This record gives sequence, C-alpha cells and structure tokens, in this order.
Amino acid sequence: MPFDLTREYIDNLKELIDQYDEKTVSNLISPLHPADIAEIFNEITIEEAKFLYMILEGETRADVIIELEEDTRERFLKALSGEEIAKQFIEEMDSDDAADVIGELSEDLQEEILQHIEDTDQAGDIVDLLSYDEDTAGGLMAKELIRVNENWNVLTCLREMRKQAEDVDEVYYVYVVDDDNVLKGILSLKKLLLARRDSKISSIYKSDIISVRTDTHKEDVANIMDKYDLVALPVVDSIDRLLGRITIDDVVDVIREEAEKDYQMISGIAEDVEPSDNVILLTRARLPWLFIGLLGGILAALVLGGYEEELKIYPEMAFFIPLIAAMGGNVGVQSSAIIVQGLASDTLGIESTGRKLFKEVSVALINGVILSSLALVYNLLTLESLALTISVSLALFAVILFASIFGTSIPLLLEKLKIDPALATGPFITTMNDIISLFIYLLIGRMLYGII
Amino acid sequence: MPFDLTREYIDNLKELIDQYDEKTVSNLISPLHPADIAEIFNEITIEEAKFLYMILEGETRADVIIELEEDTRERFLKALSGEEIAKQFIEEMDSDDAADVIGELSEDLQEEILQHIEDTDQAGDIVDLLSYDEDTAGGLMAKELIRVNENWNVLTCLREMRKQAEDVDEVYYVYVVDDDNVLKGILSLKKLLLARRDSKISSIYKSDIISVRTDTHKEDVANIMDKYDLVALPVVDSIDRLLGRITIDDVVDVIREEAEKDYQMISGIAEDVEPSDNVILLTRARLPWLFIGLLGGILAALVLGGYEEELKIYPEMAFFIPLIAAMGGNVGVQSSAIIVQGLASDTLGIESTGRKLFKEVSVALINGVILSSLALVYNLLTLESLALTISVSLALFAVILFASIFGTSIPLLLEKLKIDPALATGPFITTMNDIISLFIYLLIGRMLYGII
Repeated sequence: MPFDLTREYIDNLKELIDQYDEKTVSNLISPLHPADIAEIFNEITIEEAKFLYMILEGETRADVIIELEEDTRERFLKALSGEEIAKQFIEEMDSDDAADVIGELSEDLQEEILQHIEDTDQAGDIVDLLSYDEDTAGGLMAKELIRVNENWNVLTCLREMRKQAEDVDEVYYVYVVDDDNVLKGILSLKKLLLARRDSKISSIYKSDIISVRTDTHKEDVANIMDKYDLVALPVVDSIDRLLGRITIDDVVDVIREEAEKDYQMISGIAEDVEPSDNVILLTRARLPWLFIGLLGGILAALVLGGYEEELKIYPEMAFFIPLIAAMGGNVGVQSSAIIVQGLASDTLGIESTGRKLFKEVSVALINGVILSSLALVYNLLTLESLALTISVSLALFAVILFASIFGTSIPLLLEKLKIDPALATGPFITTMNDIISLFIYLLIGRMLYGII
Repeated sequence: MPFDLTREYIDNLKELIDQYDEKTVSNLISPLHPADIAEIFNEITIEEAKFLYMILEGETRADVIIELEEDTRERFLKALSGEEIAKQFIEEMDSDDAADVIGELSEDLQEEILQHIEDTDQAGDIVDLLSYDEDTAGGLMAKELIRVNENWNVLTCLREMRKQAEDVDEVYYVYVVDDDNVLKGILSLKKLLLARRDSKISSIYKSDIISVRTDTHKEDVANIMDKYDLVALPVVDSIDRLLGRITIDDVVDVIREEAEKDYQMISGIAEDVEPSDNVILLTRARLPWLFIGLLGGILAALVLGGYEEELKIYPEMAFFIPLIAAMGGNVGVQSSAIIVQGLASDTLGIESTGRKLFKEVSVALINGVILSSLALVYNLLTLESLALTISVSLALFAVILFASIFGTSIPLLLEKLKIDPALATGPFITTMNDIISLFIYLLIGRMLYGII
C-alpha cells in the first residue's frame, strides 16, 4: 500500500534528526520510495534535509533530488558545491533528469558541475539536452534508450541489450535503426521475448510507428502520446536519425502542469503555488491579479461617474449594476474557457473560425433571449419604471451577445499571435469585459430614459 | 509523423463514401491509426460512419469504437443490435474497454450483448468489472495480465507467457503470485529477458511493490501512478489476491478528465462540451450557470433596493459597486482554487485546517492592507466625500478578509462532507460571495455616512 505522510511521522523524524540518531533514522527512511522521501524534504528544514540526504545512498539521492518540488530543490542545492552536485547524484541520473536539474541553476554553476562529471559521454549528453528549448520534445527527451541494428538477429540483439540495458531504467521498447542511425521502427520486449533467437530483427520489428522532431512543442507531444496511448515516443532529427525518447511519466507531468497553468490563469493566480507554500509566496501569487482588479474597479467607477446625473434621478438604475457586470463576466469566461480547453486538448475540430463564431453567436442569441425574457417578466412584475425594465433586458441581451463574441475571439486571436490563449480567461480581459458591459448598460439606460 | 485531419480530407472522403467507392476509401483509411479514424467519425454523418465501419477489420473496429467520443459512440451504437455489438467488436476488446463501452448502454441491451458473447470467460470478466463503481480502481482495471507462479523458473515462465500473451496487448510487467493467487511482486520484461533461463522466478522478482484495492478512488490511483512514475499498477482484493491491472493510458484520461471537470466548474460550464459540439449542447451546458447568475443579480438588486435612500442622496456610492463585487469574487475564487488544486493533486501537505486558515488570513491581511491603502490614496485625491473614501477602503479590506476565509473554508468543508470541493469555485458559491460583499459595503457605507 502507498505510504501516507503524517504530522506524527514528521515530528518523530525531526526529533530523531535533532538527536543525530543516524541508525534509527536510516531504518525509518530506507523502506520508503524516493518520492516519499522527497515529500518529507518539503516538511523539514534545510539543515534536517541535509542530515537525511547524507544518510541516503547515491542512487536514492539522485531519485530524491529529481522528485523534489522546484523551490525546495533550489533551496537545497544552494547548500552544495558544483563538485558535490556532480559527484553525489548527477552521475547517477538519466540524462533528461540531469539536464532538468542543471538547467535550473546559474550558468556559472552549470559549467562547474559539467566540468566535474567524469563520464564525458554523460556530460556530452547533458550539454546536448541543455541546448533544446525546455518546452519542446528535445527538452523532454532522455538520451538513454536501447538501440539495435535492423540487420542483427534476436541473439545479437539480446547480447547488445545486456550491454546497453544497464544505463536504462525502464525499457518498454527497443528502437531499431539502420547503419546511419535512421529510425526504422520499434520492437516490443514482449515480441522479443517470444521470438526465436535466430529470427532477423528486420523480420519482426514494427515499422509503422509515430515519432516526433526535437522541436515539437511539449503540448503536442502530450496530445500525441495521449491520443495514441503510447508509453514511450522516439524523438528524431530532421533526417529521421534517432536522438532520444520521451517516456509517459514526463508527459503526465506536462499534462498536469498545463492544466494547472490554465486553472491558475482562470482563477487569477499568477504563479505556481500550493497551499503548503509560505505566506509571502501565496501573497505574491495573488496580489498582481487583484491589483488589475482594483484598476478595473476604479475604471468602472469613472465610467459610472459619467452617469452621475442619471443615477441621482433614477437611483434604481444602480440596482442592476451587479447583474449586468456579473453576466458579462460569466458569459465571457464561459466562451473563452471552451476555446482554451479545446486548444489545449487539440479538440477544436476542423471548423473554421467563422463557423465557430457563428455557433457562438447562435448560443448567445438563445441564452440572451431566455435570460432577458426572464428578467423582463420579473421586472415588469416588480419595477415601477418601464424605462428601467426595458433597459435592463435590452442591456442584458446586448451584453450576453457582446461577451460571447469577445470571449470567443480573444483566445483565438491570441493563439494566432502565438500568445498563450489562456490569457483570455485572466483578469485583464475579464475586467475589460466587465467595464464594457457596464458601459453598454448605462448607454442603453440613458437612451431609454430619454425616450420613455 | 502524426496524422493531421483537414477539411479537404473529410470533404474528399465524404464524396468517395457518397459514391460507394469501397476500394478507394479502404486504401485511404487503412494506413490510419484507429484514434485517427475515430476522429473522422466525429466529422461525418452516422450513415457515412456506418459505411466506413463496414470496411474496417474486426480488431480495428474495436479500437475505433473505444476511441470515439462518448456522444458519437452513443449515436453510433444505437444503429446496431446487441448481437452485432457482441460479435463485431466486443469480443475483440480488452475486458476493461468492453466493460466501459457496455456500461454506457441500457440494462436490456447490456444483457442482450452479454448473452451473445461466445467466450464465457470474457463475458464473466465483463460482468465482474461492471459490478465495480466506475470511479474506483475496480472500474479502471483490466482483467488481462500475465500471471506467473513464484515457484516456476524463467523457462516455464516464458512458455506460460506464450500462452497468456496473446490476450494481452501491451506487456510491461509480469505479475508474480503464489499458489493462492496472492500477489507477491512484479518482474519487468527487461529482467526476464536478461535472466538465465534456469533462474527461479522467486530469486529475481521485485517484491517491494505498490498495489491498490478495487475500491481505491480513481483520483488516488492517478496520484499514486503519477507520484511513483508507474506505467502499470496491480489491483488486489482485501486479502491481496491479484484481480487486475491499471495501465497508465487509462490514468492519463482520468487526470485529463478531472482537470477538465474542475476547469469547467470554475468557468461556469455545466457539462463536458467541446467547441465542435452543436449549438443545443453548448447552450445546455451554459444556461444553468447563467440562470444562477441571473438569480444572484436579482438578489443583489434587492439588497441594493434596501439602500435606495442612501443611493439617492449619495449616488457616488454606486460608483464603487463593481469594484467591491469584483474584488470579493476574485479573492474568493483565488482562495478556493488553491485549495481545490491542492486537494486534486494531493499536495495540501500535512498542515492542519486551522493552520491553513491562519495562513490564508495572513495573506488576506497583507493583500487587504495594500489594496485598501491604494484605494484610499486614489480616493483621497479624487473624491470629495471623506465618508465615501473611508467606506470604500474599509469595505474593501473587510471584503478581502471575508472572501478569503469563505473561499478557503467552503472547499475544505465540502471535502469533509464528501462533496466535490470544486463546487466552491462554481457560480452558486461565487454569487453568494458577491452578494455578501455588496452587503458589507452598503452596511459600512450607511454607518459612516451617519457618523461623518
């Protein structure tokens, strides 16, 4: 059963660490999975973490460092020298993990670490990987994989695998290449295991496979692996030479991160924070968006200030300000969110932008008619002023229509401009939406009060 | 390279189908992955889809049916009889996929299909799987796996695998059990491939493994597989007997669905919709939340109606209604979203509820002081009324404090009550938040106008 970290466990562990009781701590920690030890690191001080770290073995150290949250890792690595980082765990890591960890550090420290890595092949792999944009397949892939030549037979292949397999933790597929290292296909271990030992590789591998280029964006990588249910995806260069492979665990992280990023945007949180982060981090993540909200509110006050005379004569007009602003905001976010989610999961379909807008306008017309009619009936029964009754329903209709079109267009436009479309669900755009909605309401109100 | 579906491709295909040109269609379709064919199904009529379906081979049919979106599948299966469903593709499916597809159908149709499945073992497996809640490990697992006895040696194991492997598409691990089918550990194919053929299984398998029970919730399953980077997870009963396994592709779907569900809730969308869905579906998904927004707006109008006299005398009070309502809403959603996200990814940490609320109040105090001060300075410079200036800043501070506490408590409370905490980010709670914020502002305004 999975391990469940409790307050008691941490308190007990902290006490043992304070007593420098190496043996009991070691017995307590050694049955744990590195991911669990990493969780413990988040709950103790850096000094205590160092004590734990010194007790761990080389490979476990490497695995724990990989599993740490980014900010915990940053604080922890600050306490180590470049040589210590290189010798104590980088050498135990797969190239992709090593590149991820090193990539977060300063350039000076990066160089120092690379100089202290003894295995020049590994150092070379890390340098190669660091050169790719971290948002692309190149930034996700590991160099470690099992590569066999299409001209071998199963027996040679097994012999070669024995040599290569030491470096590779998890093997799902063997990659088949020709003499020029061009990717020809894959061979599942199951097939290899069940094949006759004198079979030629070329007669049993699967040639009809999916691969990506190093510059494929990580969201596309995630969508491809998800769509085709792959656990590993080979990465090739522009002339199809095999460079590395991406495994599903990295892609699961990408999917989670992208989903969290979009969720944070729509909830008005500026940075990646967790409830366990400290007060300063939590404040810093939230203040910027609230500041935009404050500016928006002041702008709204200015717009309303332009209608002071009307509000003095017809104070009931103010009653419906929250309704109009909220509806504008809601409809806008709904429209944007559907597009943002469709773009993220690549399920927008093949409809043209014009067709999407047409559908969105249709939805808005239906929603607008229904909601404005409801408001009309309610206000006819309860309000004295016919002008206000009509203003509210007309404005509601106009605002729903406007916000749908605005909410649908902005993310599509941002995507065209290569800006993250999720920005459309952020406070800047939604605040604009609120203010324009308010303006529509006041304008319609002024006109109708003039007429009726 | 992955296939990219275009409007031209669909138009061309539709034309060929209309001409009943079986051969050209078959040539066009056969190189495609089932997931790509499933995408095509979403873009053509049911009649056209049936034509395509008849051209496909048995196993591809099964794979396409699995990959279809739920509503497309529902419409498509309506055109087939129970016998056709059973014979034409259910028999080709893994037990978990078969149970998923059958589980969506009416009980009568389920029974009819089950009666027509010839392989009674498969029918039994499906009946077993249908009995589990679809939100649990039992509902996610497949019965197909490779099971070997700890007392065998590698050679017997390979022989047995040849027999079992036919039924299992993807093999990542072999599961080692004792004579009573109790799970003892796993054996990676890599290890098996590299082991001597006379080695005893008991001497090479990994016994320190993670498994889940059938009733483990699917979100917990996803968090476990993500945390420990697993591609397959064995499922056992209460006395550790091996029942099935969950593969990472199913968990990727769970992670995506959960993230989308939370995103839809916060964006006010009631159902799982995609931009490519029709106008009726899109309207139905959005109208309910807008209706709650309308009720909230009317309630806000009633609250404001109670302050009609004040608004007549001090119409400037109305200017800041959007500011107060927007800030209350923003702060509330920020607070709830952090908790909802922490609960979903199991990263809430081990802090107590009291400690979380204390931190949240601290964050609110800092944000409240900064934003209220900014508003104070601005209003001191621009407003004539001191009472209004002080009211706005005081109310702003109170609203930020209130909304943080409210926004943090509600999802934690919902979680305790075993209700989806994401509901806290939905329109019902956020509308309540808006109205209470407004009420706080008006109350403070009335008091201060009385005093100053």
